[in-house]
Amino acid sequence: MQSISEDVETRVRARLNSLTKPPGSLGRLEEIAIRFASIRGEEMPSAARKAVYVFCGDHGVTAEGVSAYPSEVTQQMMRNFVEGGAAINVLCRSFGAEAVIVDAGSKAAPLEGVLNRKIAAGTRNFVVEPAMTREQAEQSLAIGREMAEEAADRYDIVGLGEMGIGNTTSAAAILSVFARRPARETAGRGAGVDDRGFARKLAAIERALEFHNPDPADPVGVLAAVGGFEIGAIAGFILGAAESGLPVVLDGFPCCAGALIACGLKAVSVEKAFFSHESAEPGHRMMLDLLHATPLLNLGMRLGEGTGAALAMNLIGASVALYREMATFSEASVSTKSAS
Amino acid sequence: MQSISEDVETRVRARLNSLTKPPGSLGRLEEIAIRFASIRGEEMPSAARKAVYVFCGDHGVTAEGVSAYPSEVTQQMMRNFVEGGAAINVLCRSFGAEAVIVDAGSKAAPLEGVLNRKIAAGTRNFVVEPAMTREQAEQSLAIGREMAEEAADRYDIVGLGEMGIGNTTSAAAILSVFARRPARETAGRGAGVDDRGFARKLAAIERALEFHNPDPADPVGVLAAVGGFEIGAIAGFILGAAESGLPVVLDGFPCCAGALIACGLKAVSVEKAFFSHESAEPGHRMMLDLLHATPLLNLGMRLGEGTGAALAMNLIGASVALYREMATFSEASVSTKSAS
Repeated sequence: MQSISEDVETRVRARLNSLTKPPGSLGRLEEIAIRFASIRGEEMPSAARKAVYVFCGDHGVTAEGVSAYPSEVTQQMMRNFVEGGAAINVLCRSFGAEAVIVDAGSKAAPLEGVLNRKIAAGTRNFVVEPAMTREQAEQSLAIGREMAEEAADRYDIVGLGEMGIGNTTSAAAILSVFARRPARETAGRGAGVDDRGFARKLAAIERALEFHNPDPADPVGVLAAVGGFEIGAIAGFILGAAESGLPVVLDGFPCCAGALIACGLKAVSVEKAFFSHESAEPGHRMMLDLLHATPLLNLGMRLGEGTGAALAMNLIGASVALYREMATFSEASVSTKSAS
Repeated sequence: MQSISEDVETRVRARLNSLTKPPGSLGRLEEIAIRFASIRGEEMPSAARKAVYVFCGDHGVTAEGVSAYPSEVTQQMMRNFVEGGAAINVLCRSFGAEAVIVDAGSKAAPLEGVLNRKIAAGTRNFVVEPAMTREQAEQSLAIGREMAEEAADRYDIVGLGEMGIGNTTSAAAILSVFARRPARETAGRGAGVDDRGFARKLAAIERALEFHNPDPADPVGVLAAVGGFEIGAIAGFILGAAESGLPVVLDGFPCCAGALIACGLKAVSVEKAFFSHESAEPGHRMMLDLLHATPLLNLGMRLGEGTGAALAMNLIGASVALYREMATFSEASVSTKSAS
């Protein structure tokens, strides 16, 4: 794994302090520019080539009635992505980023405009059996890792998002395992499930945790027991991106469940990711704490698809542009600080 | 003053709930779209035509040694704005906004590319005399109001920023008057003044407050006693924009000092403004509380120039684009919520 270059960091910091602004006055935008350059291993990196990867998957646990929307909405939304009508499409168009839609394991038929990396037509119902086999869990990680390696040749920065009815149930189960906390502390209402559905969601997670008793020291086992194909692919992408020096921007609750798996496998991979926002899904705060992450935005969003990641990518792009394009004090003939 | 239309608000809310996302899942971006449309008084508003106005002015109180940078930096930075090398230029280029530089009262000679609305070559030193006459205070408000009326014909949204060495001292004095708190609670280090300069800054504000004893019920008097020409112009712009249905986005500490003046003159004007970010300047939190404002971003910035406003304008633009461009459930043939 490429180490974060201290040399680049020193040079970037020196340039930031030579720009026509009080030192440090761009706050977190300065930290972002330093981290971005460090991950790229370049003193003058570009953030011009951008994409958001939306990993899609279906979830057998929807059979328990845990979701606000019927399971078919996963594939309906995949069609909406291809047709350009979803929130993530609008943001990608606004910000000049490509939207890359990946079927990691949905029940959808092959669809033009969707990259087919389907492992199976949805996971199994993890209340009564493992969500997937260990081989499938490994396969989902491999798919993500391979896509990150390809993406590193094409893009300077990639946002990660997901679509999958049922996946906040899977994400809450994963969080319960790593945080060792019960479902009532990790699960929220996802896309807005009602009281009865929420009670079924909590019960489903508790039964699954009791049935599988997943070991947090075995992240692949956790993924196989209660995970999702899109969550595994996101974990693999985070691992691959860190190895390839590609900065990634993580979205909300299901996406950060992928980060928990990646962190369990290789903690340093997550240190190279940007965390976009704090979701309105209550368990996301606990996830961010576990991952020692300070997100850039807090706008009460809980839509998924990579929407928070897209907004944060734009802030990161602005940070890099400021770093690259601002005049220095000497270039602009501006006086530096007075002595007191 | 144009009232915020409840009718538009109802229709915008209905459309937001018909878009392919769980209701409310875009969080504050949905509130932003509703407010933006309400201020515009249009069901399908555009946020495409954008500008950031940077009001510049010099401050006589710099004679007290209150600033980290020499007073000449105001005009040097004005030249930097014209040449495109400052932070606000980079952000405006990145986000497709125009940067409009206005000399409201600097010591600079006329400069091509700067709108000359100069009231005087800097304010007086408010420790020993009023910063400006009452007529000049009225004039600064009138300049801003007139510019807002012109801007309403040319732009859909305007960010407001400022440049003026010494203006955090003036802004802290204004805050002290309206919050009825001493300088040690309202003043920070601005662009980074050292310990000795900071002690002089606190002493200057305290002496000025004692000398003028400004009445918070007379905002024009406060502006004349301890204000700045750029702060008055910003206050006038906020008032004019609210009357013209032009959404404005406010920047940090000196800009919000203008909002305090505007709020004192007509409270509803500030209800029609967006607050971009919470500055690292400590008194900004108290200002935001006084103005009942919840800013969109908190990135530890304290640069001014409208940089926070530019970043937040981009979020507002994204909110409006989502509202306008996302497909509805029926357009995209996506199922709505399941019954439980």
